[in-house]
Amino acid sequence: MYDIAKIRADFPILSRQVNGKPLVYLDNGASAQKPQVVIDAVTQGYAMEYANVHRGLHYLSNLATDKYEAARGKIARFLNAGSEHEIVFTTGATEGINLVSYAWAAPRFQAGDEIVLSIMEHHANIVPWHFLRERLGVVLKWVEVDGKGDLDPQAVLDAITPRTKLIAITHMSNVLGTVVDVKSICDGARLRGVPVLVDGSQAVVHGPVDVQAIGCDFYAITGHKLYGPSGSGAIFIKPERMAEMRPFLGGGDMIREVSRDAVSYNDAPMKFEAGTPGIVQQIGLGVALDYLTGLGMANVAAHERALRDYARAKLGGLNWLTVQGNSETKGAIFSFTLQGQAHAHDISTVLDKRGIAVRAGTHCAMPLMQHMGVGATCRASFGLYNTVEEVDALISALELCHELFA
Amino acid sequence: MYDIAKIRADFPILSRQVNGKPLVYLDNGASAQKPQVVIDAVTQGYAMEYANVHRGLHYLSNLATDKYEAARGKIARFLNAGSEHEIVFTTGATEGINLVSYAWAAPRFQAGDEIVLSIMEHHANIVPWHFLRERLGVVLKWVEVDGKGDLDPQAVLDAITPRTKLIAITHMSNVLGTVVDVKSICDGARLRGVPVLVDGSQAVVHGPVDVQAIGCDFYAITGHKLYGPSGSGAIFIKPERMAEMRPFLGGGDMIREVSRDAVSYNDAPMKFEAGTPGIVQQIGLGVALDYLTGLGMANVAAHERALRDYARAKLGGLNWLTVQGNSETKGAIFSFTLQGQAHAHDISTVLDKRGIAVRAGTHCAMPLMQHMGVGATCRASFGLYNTVEEVDALISALELCHELFA
Repeated sequence: MYDIAKIRADFPILSRQVNGKPLVYLDNGASAQKPQVVIDAVTQGYAMEYANVHRGLHYLSNLATDKYEAARGKIARFLNAGSEHEIVFTTGATEGINLVSYAWAAPRFQAGDEIVLSIMEHHANIVPWHFLRERLGVVLKWVEVDGKGDLDPQAVLDAITPRTKLIAITHMSNVLGTVVDVKSICDGARLRGVPVLVDGSQAVVHGPVDVQAIGCDFYAITGHKLYGPSGSGAIFIKPERMAEMRPFLGGGDMIREVSRDAVSYNDAPMKFEAGTPGIVQQIGLGVALDYLTGLGMANVAAHERALRDYARAKLGGLNWLTVQGNSETKGAIFSFTLQGQAHAHDISTVLDKRGIAVRAGTHCAMPLMQHMGVGATCRASFGLYNTVEEVDALISALELCHELFA
Repeated sequence: MYDIAKIRADFPILSRQVNGKPLVYLDNGASAQKPQVVIDAVTQGYAMEYANVHRGLHYLSNLATDKYEAARGKIARFLNAGSEHEIVFTTGATEGINLVSYAWAAPRFQAGDEIVLSIMEHHANIVPWHFLRERLGVVLKWVEVDGKGDLDPQAVLDAITPRTKLIAITHMSNVLGTVVDVKSICDGARLRGVPVLVDGSQAVVHGPVDVQAIGCDFYAITGHKLYGPSGSGAIFIKPERMAEMRPFLGGGDMIREVSRDAVSYNDAPMKFEAGTPGIVQQIGLGVALDYLTGLGMANVAAHERALRDYARAKLGGLNWLTVQGNSETKGAIFSFTLQGQAHAHDISTVLDKRGIAVRAGTHCAMPLMQHMGVGATCRASFGLYNTVEEVDALISALELCHELFA
């Protein structure tokens, strides 16, 4: 039983007002709010159980280390990784993808090697590859989506050539909500010997993820979108790929021995975790995953499907509004433009006056915007605590925008 | 008036017990505890004021952005940087130094180029340079400390050759407590055209720092040692050096425009800050700096000098104990070994039973340990809330160790 009122009461910020109106938070694609259990874990971590990890032998250091390392196991189970040794802590998906670019790709790729990307990647899964284009002469090959925003897995596989060294692809578009059939892509890519990195930043928030079933080589997630603290995150890396990686950030904890003339490295995954980590944030992320597991990710997905269907029908009824992305199986993320003079930023401002938080702009996905031929959109992105009443509030406020700017 | 009882009451963890004894936290060199105002800022940030920064136009996003960017200004003022544009947010000193290594040094250095380091650097200021040795053939040149742990600035300058491209040096040793005359080093290096990176992780915690007076090119700090949240931090970078840096991590926020075939970058410092940052952590760091400014860093330094003098006299009275590092102007950091069979780890365990938290090991400074000819030491590192009574508790527990292991 998915008790939405009880769930909403778990998130203190949802009881606040913005501009004199109850907050309607529809900017979950940018970052999600935090349940009280996560806030409490962070508070407790700093107030009563804080010390550095891995380095001390004293009580507080052992306590913090146990809790921090327990979060690694929780992440492994949440993604159904084969082992917690396949989980590298990061500060988010951006650091995770850059880790792969610097530690695995850069030392192995040469001029003319190719990376296949979809046109709807987030900048976090574009710019690290542009670096390799600028610095090494790697070629980026783009696969487009169709008019509904769907991506044909076969089109991705058809883009593979003998020079293809990596497919880097999102599991769910942060703009269109499109869910990509990454399993089919991984199955086909494996037959051709091409590793696949999946950007799971959005997908992991909205339904169950099983990296072993998907068969990907890398799966990056970010904690702040997963109802966890800012600065938390992780990346799943298949052991074969991890064995191919050189270190990325250098410092304490990731070494075995250091002398004047030599350095040797710790075992993976510690080899890729330098310096004092985000101790309390990662503990908080573990608690966020406990919370999600308690709700059941299949239940979260079902709730959001109902929201999607309701919002899709309501938005579809506005003949002066265009939704970008109408994939049948999309997530509850709606980017849209209004006919007439209403710029996305103006719409966002009007909605904000009614307490409704949406995002306006290019959503860190400029190649997709160029492909769609739109300069900027508004985006309403739903999370596990949103309601049909909030969809109604959005629709009502959009009708006001239509009147104001028509 | 430095009211130590009032100050201690600001730190909730200091009222707890460990192993049935009041906590005596002497592991500040590894990480510092957090005052209630920092914990409250973090709680408030998540519970009532959370959203992603820089990306939204709605109320909560603007609020979070204002608070986040205010922290940048606080860091700039705390270090007396010329402008907040000279401050790049990082997750700590490790990321800051790696940023310099990857974004400034790696594209500019060639085989045979030299980096001058002191023998007492922390691994965070060694391993990134070992990477350049391994990958580019850069040569590391080590400057030793004398028997008291002092470093002659002239010896550092004498190590400069026409191939020297960087001096990377700590402002305060995390093992010996030695304070390095980084101003003299920067003055001399500037005349020879050699940039200087200062690892300020320890020094900035224990007294006033003025990067303009020092004249360094880079000054890295870490928030978790500064009584701020884990995962917070920053690096000061002189504008001339920042202009020479290419981007490091790629993703959202650090770009201006992205297309299929090209990418252009945001203005510095944003150019070096990719993806969703440690929003709430950096806000918390700003509050920690407010707290320190309220106490007055000169007052903190005076308090810790008194602790140092008291501890130095007391430890010096134990003829079965050897302190590593006796620089006249050292900070209140004491690494030591006991004569006889007492291993550092055993000592740490005995102290822990009495509620006293110290660190045992090689302190992320193996080259220094090799230079000193010790395998591992115990380290008691003091902070602004420690007391002479805690020194007495340490001495009493060490006397017990001496009896047990003699």
